[in-house]
Amino acid sequence: MGRFTIRYGDHVTRARRDGRPVVALESTIVSHGLPRPDNLRVAREIERTVRDNGAVPATIGMIGGELIVGLSDAQIEHLAGADGVAKLSVRDLAVAAASGADGATTVAATSAVAASAGIGVFATGGLGGVHREASATFDESADLTTLARTPIVVVCAGVKSILDVGATLERLETLGVSVAGYGTRRFPGFFVTDGGFDVDWQLDSPAQVAAVMAAREEQGVGAGALVLGNPLPADEQLDPALHDRTLAEGLELLARDGVTGKAVTPFLLAHFHSSTEGRSLEVNVRIILRNAALAAQIAAAATPAHAALGFSLPG
Amino acid sequence: MGRFTIRYGDHVTRARRDGRPVVALESTIVSHGLPRPDNLRVAREIERTVRDNGAVPATIGMIGGELIVGLSDAQIEHLAGADGVAKLSVRDLAVAAASGADGATTVAATSAVAASAGIGVFATGGLGGVHREASATFDESADLTTLARTPIVVVCAGVKSILDVGATLERLETLGVSVAGYGTRRFPGFFVTDGGFDVDWQLDSPAQVAAVMAAREEQGVGAGALVLGNPLPADEQLDPALHDRTLAEGLELLARDGVTGKAVTPFLLAHFHSSTEGRSLEVNVRIILRNAALAAQIAAAATPAHAALGFSLPG
Amino acid sequence: MGRFTIRYGDHVTRARRDGRPVVALESTIVSHGLPRPDNLRVAREIERTVRDNGAVPATIGMIGGELIVGLSDAQIEHLAGADGVAKLSVRDLAVAAASGADGATTVAATSAVAASAGIGVFATGGLGGVHREASATFDESADLTTLARTPIVVVCAGVKSILDVGATLERLETLGVSVAGYGTRRFPGFFVTDGGFDVDWQLDSPAQVAAVMAAREEQGVGAGALVLGNPLPADEQLDPALHDRTLAEGLELLARDGVTGKAVTPFLLAHFHSSTEGRSLEVNVRIILRNAALAAQIAAAATPAHAALGFSLPG
Ligand SMILES: [Mn+2]
Ligand SMILES: [Mn+2]
Ligand SMILES: [Mn+2]
Repeated sequence: MGRFTIRYGDHVTRARRDGRPVVALESTIVSHGLPRPDNLRVAREIERTVRDNGAVPATIGMIGGELIVGLSDAQIEHLAGADGVAKLSVRDLAVAAASGADGATTVAATSAVAASAGIGVFATGGLGGVHREASATFDESADLTTLARTPIVVVCAGVKSILDVGATLERLETLGVSVAGYGTRRFPGFFVTDGGFDVDWQLDSPAQVAAVMAAREEQGVGAGALVLGNPLPADEQLDPALHDRTLAEGLELLARDGVTGKAVTPFLLAHFHSSTEGRSLEVNVRIILRNAALAAQIAAAATPAHAALGFSLPG
Repeated sequence: MGRFTIRYGDHVTRARRDGRPVVALESTIVSHGLPRPDNLRVAREIERTVRDNGAVPATIGMIGGELIVGLSDAQIEHLAGADGVAKLSVRDLAVAAASGADGATTVAATSAVAASAGIGVFATGGLGGVHREASATFDESADLTTLARTPIVVVCAGVKSILDVGATLERLETLGVSVAGYGTRRFPGFFVTDGGFDVDWQLDSPAQVAAVMAAREEQGVGAGALVLGNPLPADEQLDPALHDRTLAEGLELLARDGVTGKAVTPFLLAHFHSSTEGRSLEVNVRIILRNAALAAQIAAAATPAHAALGFSLPG
Repeated sequence: MGRFTIRYGDHVTRARRDGRPVVALESTIVSHGLPRPDNLRVAREIERTVRDNGAVPATIGMIGGELIVGLSDAQIEHLAGADGVAKLSVRDLAVAAASGADGATTVAATSAVAASAGIGVFATGGLGGVHREASATFDESADLTTLARTPIVVVCAGVKSILDVGATLERLETLGVSVAGYGTRRFPGFFVTDGGFDVDWQLDSPAQVAAVMAAREEQGVGAGALVLGNPLPADEQLDPALHDRTLAEGLELLARDGVTGKAVTPFLLAHFHSSTEGRSLEVNVRIILRNAALAAQIAAAATPAHAALGFSLPG
């Protein structure tokens, strides 16, 4: 076992040994996605939600160059509070390890590490995607290309609405990433229930999603992910009029202040946070907790040994 | 053997057991590409052409969630006549299986399934590609990205001319998909002999194409497809002046009627069909039959056991 | 062993048997990148530089359809002097072999062949990338997509500055190709030290690069290359004011003369050569020699058996 081999948290080692369902969780939401001290509280709530729904959480991240599947509570606390935590996509994992870095894994890196660890389900908030103006800047998230070659179910509430959602859906199609709505034929719009686009497939139960996972493995043809869009119920979403107004204002401010490149996403998210008086943040947390619950139910439905033991799964 | 394992038609099972050459065929041409009742007649003619040229046809599709390599005549008849047959790209295969769908496979899905079944040659009409306006819409066919990772020879008459052919050739280069002309250094233009672009390589016989297949496997370096452009003879093409006029009119009508997105391709093909008084359809059928014949000859040339038996192949 | 199996030069066969460090070198710089007779002289200097820095050079190319890892001096001389040597990207390798061609391998093909031969380090001048105007033309080098799936360290001085460097860095990020600066956090600008963009990671020694290689293999997550940008020292670069003026003039001439497509790169490089009175060529040669030296040191640092023998490596 080399110095850079992936390490497993004790709870994940036990779950793997016992054939219990595991759900992968990202760490960028802890380190970069939510403000302190909410981030640590929410990270713990996400893990608890996974447990409450019948699976074991495996939050993925890097501590001192060690890539860890199943961070301990102390390690999560470290990533939530430390300065200089790197944001790691797949391409950063080896360089960061050799540099002995602390790092939080993006959707891309979490998916890829999870899949290589044999974990089939991952819960997150929203995917990265094609940025507005990408036809000039070529700014497209590595989430898309990584999901094209990573066999995992990503439970999300769509794509962050500050991106070009239509172009992102086209790229997912081009790259061969499966897309389905959970209980709907509409692609969710992250903060809002309806993202404005249809999807071709609807899946209605954890068991049906587990059947898709089995089909992909038995067919042995496609190697890509299934993006499962799990929309917020209409009465839990950010008010769509407020959402659209806030987004339009944010885009105007971008242009006025000449904000470009990597500064765009944090700028727009901060604008959402302040303009909605924190409601966008509350909604963001609800999204990830709902997705964690659904992901756990899917992982449980996809775990035959577990099912054989006769566990009953919370609905 | 799982519930979702790929099934083989009896004729394909026998051919595989006996080491006889097999040619993959798509089913979207049957379900979506040609109008009824021509579609069923043509599907049968394509299979007969493959047989007449020394190989066994394996039309690929999905019946009730079962992915089948080598549909029976009754199954082809079902896909030709049934309503609600889904159009399946690679990313749809697992979801469709879990949904118990009837489906027809695109160029991408047919290629990927064929390659995973060990079939090395596939005959179709024309590839999907980069859509006009794709720099704004990001609408690019999954055929291209799938062919980048699928070791198969795709015999076609180029790219559908309603697409951006130049951009499609650039994408094929970027993605590492081999392109050669059969008996020509010009990329064919689907309905017309000459598509307006050069290609770097010319191959002149089924044996030479089979040598490329052997080289790719023995080198073990690239994993992509070979797109073999097989142009219509000049005296069998759609009159180029009629073609260009029809296309220009179609594009004007698109703009006038505000047709966009997934409606564009059927709109333009219907316009071609009506404006050429059915001649575009006749040409389309000639293309696929010629490609089926050449694909069969290539499959035969690439099948050593078969060659060892001393079969003589029709020219 | 088939007719198309990769052949190894005797010196590479011996190095592989003895576990000595090997550095891959491309042959397009010999056949297409430099004018005669400089090209042969420089090719030999590159190989000598690799040897002087503790590794065995493996120049890759094709002779009469045979793909060779470790061309002999006579074979390099042939590619340097012959007419009609094809420029081979990955997608051309099988077709060229079946055609019995002489060919020189690009960055993409050299990387892919080297990786499949188990060689982990490759020295070149500059990468291909996204062309200016690519949002309209879709002209993007296959180097980028190939590096996305090829586990190798590419030592280079960045991307040719006649390309769209910003868009190329975005594509490398999207595709999951690791990028680091050697001794710097700035991406080098090929002819000039500073290419105008930051990179996220800095590596400072051959041993540190070797640790990244080990981490990538032990983690087993990403399959892409590491692009290591090795800038020219400021006092060896082309004068930046001359560089920018020459580039601006060249782009104006392109527009004036209506030069497009594949003619753009040779046109601009010839313009650089003549407008700088040969200084751009001198700089080009310095770049590749410096990269060959660093690549050899990295290969030596990454070769444990070699290190165990107690060789001391030139700095
Ligand atoms: Mn980006
Ligand atoms: Mn499309
Ligand atoms: Mn190009």
